[in-house]
Amino acid sequence: MIRVAIQGATGYTALELLRILLRHPEVRVAALTSRTETGHVSEVHPSLTGRLDLKLENLSAEQLAERADVCFCCLPHVASMESIPKLLSAGLKVIDLSADYRLNDPAVYEQWYGHVHTDPTRLGSTPYGLPELFAARIPGQSLIANPGCYTSTAILALAPLLAGGYVEPTGIIIDAKSGVSGAGRAPKVNFLYSECNESISAYSVGNHRHTPEIEQVLSQASGQKVDVIFTPHLTPMDRGILATIYATPTGTATQAELLAAMRTYYAGKPFVRIVEHLPKTKDVSGTNYFDATVRVVRGKVLVLAVLDNLIKGAAGVAVQNFNLLCGFEETAGLLV
Amino acid sequence: MIRVAIQGATGYTALELLRILLRHPEVRVAALTSRTETGHVSEVHPSLTGRLDLKLENLSAEQLAERADVCFCCLPHVASMESIPKLLSAGLKVIDLSADYRLNDPAVYEQWYGHVHTDPTRLGSTPYGLPELFAARIPGQSLIANPGCYTSTAILALAPLLAGGYVEPTGIIIDAKSGVSGAGRAPKVNFLYSECNESISAYSVGNHRHTPEIEQVLSQASGQKVDVIFTPHLTPMDRGILATIYATPTGTATQAELLAAMRTYYAGKPFVRIVEHLPKTKDVSGTNYFDATVRVVRGKVLVLAVLDNLIKGAAGVAVQNFNLLCGFEETAGLLV
Amino acid sequence: MIRVAIQGATGYTALELLRILLRHPEVRVAALTSRTETGHVSEVHPSLTGRLDLKLENLSAEQLAERADVCFCCLPHVASMESIPKLLSAGLKVIDLSADYRLNDPAVYEQWYGHVHTDPTRLGSTPYGLPELFAARIPGQSLIANPGCYTSTAILALAPLLAGGYVEPTGIIIDAKSGVSGAGRAPKVNFLYSECNESISAYSVGNHRHTPEIEQVLSQASGQKVDVIFTPHLTPMDRGILATIYATPTGTATQAELLAAMRTYYAGKPFVRIVEHLPKTKDVSGTNYFDATVRVVRGKVLVLAVLDNLIKGAAGVAVQNFNLLCGFEETAGLLV
Amino acid sequence: MIRVAIQGATGYTALELLRILLRHPEVRVAALTSRTETGHVSEVHPSLTGRLDLKLENLSAEQLAERADVCFCCLPHVASMESIPKLLSAGLKVIDLSADYRLNDPAVYEQWYGHVHTDPTRLGSTPYGLPELFAARIPGQSLIANPGCYTSTAILALAPLLAGGYVEPTGIIIDAKSGVSGAGRAPKVNFLYSECNESISAYSVGNHRHTPEIEQVLSQASGQKVDVIFTPHLTPMDRGILATIYATPTGTATQAELLAAMRTYYAGKPFVRIVEHLPKTKDVSGTNYFDATVRVVRGKVLVLAVLDNLIKGAAGVAVQNFNLLCGFEETAGLLV
Repeated sequence: MIRVAIQGATGYTALELLRILLRHPEVRVAALTSRTETGHVSEVHPSLTGRLDLKLENLSAEQLAERADVCFCCLPHVASMESIPKLLSAGLKVIDLSADYRLNDPAVYEQWYGHVHTDPTRLGSTPYGLPELFAARIPGQSLIANPGCYTSTAILALAPLLAGGYVEPTGIIIDAKSGVSGAGRAPKVNFLYSECNESISAYSVGNHRHTPEIEQVLSQASGQKVDVIFTPHLTPMDRGILATIYATPTGTATQAELLAAMRTYYAGKPFVRIVEHLPKTKDVSGTNYFDATVRVVRGKVLVLAVLDNLIKGAAGVAVQNFNLLCGFEETAGLLV
Repeated sequence: MIRVAIQGATGYTALELLRILLRHPEVRVAALTSRTETGHVSEVHPSLTGRLDLKLENLSAEQLAERADVCFCCLPHVASMESIPKLLSAGLKVIDLSADYRLNDPAVYEQWYGHVHTDPTRLGSTPYGLPELFAARIPGQSLIANPGCYTSTAILALAPLLAGGYVEPTGIIIDAKSGVSGAGRAPKVNFLYSECNESISAYSVGNHRHTPEIEQVLSQASGQKVDVIFTPHLTPMDRGILATIYATPTGTATQAELLAAMRTYYAGKPFVRIVEHLPKTKDVSGTNYFDATVRVVRGKVLVLAVLDNLIKGAAGVAVQNFNLLCGFEETAGLLV
Repeated sequence: MIRVAIQGATGYTALELLRILLRHPEVRVAALTSRTETGHVSEVHPSLTGRLDLKLENLSAEQLAERADVCFCCLPHVASMESIPKLLSAGLKVIDLSADYRLNDPAVYEQWYGHVHTDPTRLGSTPYGLPELFAARIPGQSLIANPGCYTSTAILALAPLLAGGYVEPTGIIIDAKSGVSGAGRAPKVNFLYSECNESISAYSVGNHRHTPEIEQVLSQASGQKVDVIFTPHLTPMDRGILATIYATPTGTATQAELLAAMRTYYAGKPFVRIVEHLPKTKDVSGTNYFDATVRVVRGKVLVLAVLDNLIKGAAGVAVQNFNLLCGFEETAGLLV
Repeated sequence: MIRVAIQGATGYTALELLRILLRHPEVRVAALTSRTETGHVSEVHPSLTGRLDLKLENLSAEQLAERADVCFCCLPHVASMESIPKLLSAGLKVIDLSADYRLNDPAVYEQWYGHVHTDPTRLGSTPYGLPELFAARIPGQSLIANPGCYTSTAILALAPLLAGGYVEPTGIIIDAKSGVSGAGRAPKVNFLYSECNESISAYSVGNHRHTPEIEQVLSQASGQKVDVIFTPHLTPMDRGILATIYATPTGTATQAELLAAMRTYYAGKPFVRIVEHLPKTKDVSGTNYFDATVRVVRGKVLVLAVLDNLIKGAAGVAVQNFNLLCGFEETAGLLV
């Protein structure tokens, strides 16, 4: 039984993580922290009433290390890189769900996040926790950088085609649509029900922070410099991401050949489903699956890909990483 | 042409009011105030781009009075009663959309709103602006108290049956369901998209502030002391209120007789539609209509009533009051 | 390992049932029937891609009995009572999710469902599968009548208060709000997205078929003749039921005493959570929980109760019954 | 006063058209047809209760011509081209909201719609009713082909940039997101609330019928052969279209220059708003506005454009065409 803590347990990702961990056969949830809330976890997350008898506490790294073996860090960026060196020093293994350890280059971090990275030596050496591509690097680590939600969607959709040389690495367009839970639980006017409901819009056009992460990992996965135009959209639904991706083929591979290439690339991967039909976000809602298909249209290759932003895009893949880290079945707690 | 100002122009009700006033044939929108925002109105309300060339300004009562003849006050309660005496002194006619001048008794106000009323002498003498019941009192006034959204729904549904003696004045149950726009535009966690979407719940059970307002006006309209149990619910939709009302019949009037009584009571009222079918909030969405029907079920009289909380429940009825105040057609600007 | 079949596997309840059964440690899903569809189950339910390799087939009772031990019958009413005698004769144990075996009296069935009951001798003797009230009757049976979704909400909310004599058995008002999935998957204009979205309305006022079922079971549970006014509402969300219930107290029990009585009544019941706060449907979404609280307001007792109509209101309670029938842990497959 | 008829008055577009026509100062709605429904229009459209006292009738072209001067034809394609020659022969002026008279080439029609065009001589000579581009051709005509909703969004977004030579005419990607009302009111499983809600997906990838219409009109407007990849998405909201468009610049025009070019192109057009901010579908909901902006991102020109699919995309532009046809102000009935 592994004892697990969650640092920053009040948000939507932490709630989803708790739901998964509570059904995980090898986990005991041992501590929950919050910088602002105290009281029983079910006061903040009423859906957990009767499931978990823990309070939210403001715990030091040492206190966390006394109670837990592994800590999932659900703090926002910057707060995360302030906390994680302490957690690691205290002896915890850490899975970080923020963006702080995903980029390799501190200068790129500073450019996109507007903060000097305060733990730069760990950038580059921290494994990027996308198990479908990098499972081998995860066992034995003390810190894993859990990927972003848009990022995972785009990378999983494109990695097979780029690695196989089927599409050009430049000029890729990623038009992505996300449910509102991706915006988190902080009270902001833009994310009020009456603002988001019955409306769709693009945001952060040309400057969303997942852009360098997508490019870095796809470049790494394909051995070529990849560049993308990434356009996120706020969609009136709780959860789910759909990425509609447009790439330029390098040759004359047919749709069937591209589908076959994707299937081969992901052979044996339990959470990837390459399908014939056009996927809907609802097909993967509440699951750790990534569904995708390919179409060839008028000289372009289109990939249509969906995942649940809170699960495969955050809490689910975090547990997948945890399973690999701890030597459990990759699917433990995740097939529901 | 009447020159109109809106005090507190950043919220949803003010936006709806602007939409109506911009199509009103006798109105020129002359000034908009905000305590927090500056800049062009279309920065806060992009849907008004190209419709209205005005800035949000922090204007004194005197400045408003120089530019406008009538002021719609869309401030929150308390702020409203601080402002309105000044507006009146400056010579403006005022339609107040807050709760500050709706109750007759300052002690009741203090009990339900938790603030001492600072302008108590105007309570009781300020007409309650529900034109279907009190149209005659509105012309010639300088201040009108615009009704609450739940309140109008409940009062319009029950007034004919209470005034006609068809139902008992006590033990009335009002189970009301409102869209989220009723909660306003302040950034609060409870009204985030991800909290409200895919969820319905009751709130303020037994203590919602519209309760004394409903009872006061229904008592006045029927000449008997009315008491109600009022249960509001937050419903995952932008706008609309449905009230499902349960009352005890005094006699043996049939459903058809009750419908006829309601039709007679509202004869000639342009915004009331007594219908045979069960009304949906969508039937009145974007309009100033109030739709209602009656059912007799197992010894109870049920009234099912709908209106658009932002229009007939707020901005639309405010313009109806404005029309009566200024001697225009009651429907001017309101039939779309 | 129990071999399980689902008869009528194309609807929303069947999909939910499959999700639960696929994670149930003691179940193998062995056969799926449809009268209209053929082909792989993932063509109708893409979310099951990779989870279950079965086709939809038009199978006879004998064929089903060869492949399965227990059959969940998800046919509509009437179709269900035509099929079930054959399933039982073929030796299957059956959990019926239709309304056909819930009522004790064939005359009441005929009155509310408009069909002569063709298997009347099983009415009355078939146990009503609401385990929180009738768990003891379920083991060893060959047929279980799974309750209706509104019905379970109302019964679980009221049974403790009626059985304890805290509220009058007559004049109870049940104002219930349901998500649209309760309407099923048949293509009808009324349930199109553009009809239901952004709208709430009552329907079947005074004549919904769950009325006699609620009254029968509550009468049985409390030993008194119970009558209710039941008003269902179609709410713009996928899933969830909220019942706001108004009853007349018999005495002067306080809110705290009523809460305590409910807690005592449901002591040891793993899926009932009596809470202090006002429950939201989202608190139980995707779970088999029933959450409820009590308020005393102006001389009435209010119960506010929520469940997920597809799970605790249908597929989840069906598996709860299955667990009791087969001697498994009551929670097997159901705690996620 | 122009007497107007609507042929095929039961759908969402017809309802929206009625709402506009009822507030139009120069219109009397004189006849409504349906092939399937009879009875008062308010039985099908309860929101029109009290607004319009007309029945739905199955009227011949001659009967329609006796009652009306202009007929809006809201029949589906094929049905439209069967009816319209008769309406024209009977002397009516016709605005056709179907796709039947939009394409110039009967062979292209047959290829995309799967039907031989039965009125081919009118193709090519029927003006395409997009007033921002072709207002001069509309006065004096007897038949106008009202554009498709996706089509108008794409054409209005791209015409200025193509006509000005700012972007390449080939390789344009149009990633469009539409509310569900675009799918119409026919009862189909795919458009049930429980299918569409909480889900987004692409559909008709590479083969949506608006593709040749977009290409034809943009080629005509820009004098070059335009080809596009058009990907529509079904979005969980009632109404609104957002098109996110990716084109290749021909030169080095800046974002500001492109915005200026768009403003110049649409100078004096009352329903086009070229804005600085990223438009939301909610900004134009319920209006006849088209809002768009431009961004230059990593060597591509992005246009982000929104309109209300039922108004500017259907009923509103139809009335705009009607106004031009009849010599009224272009904005009559449309500024609300």
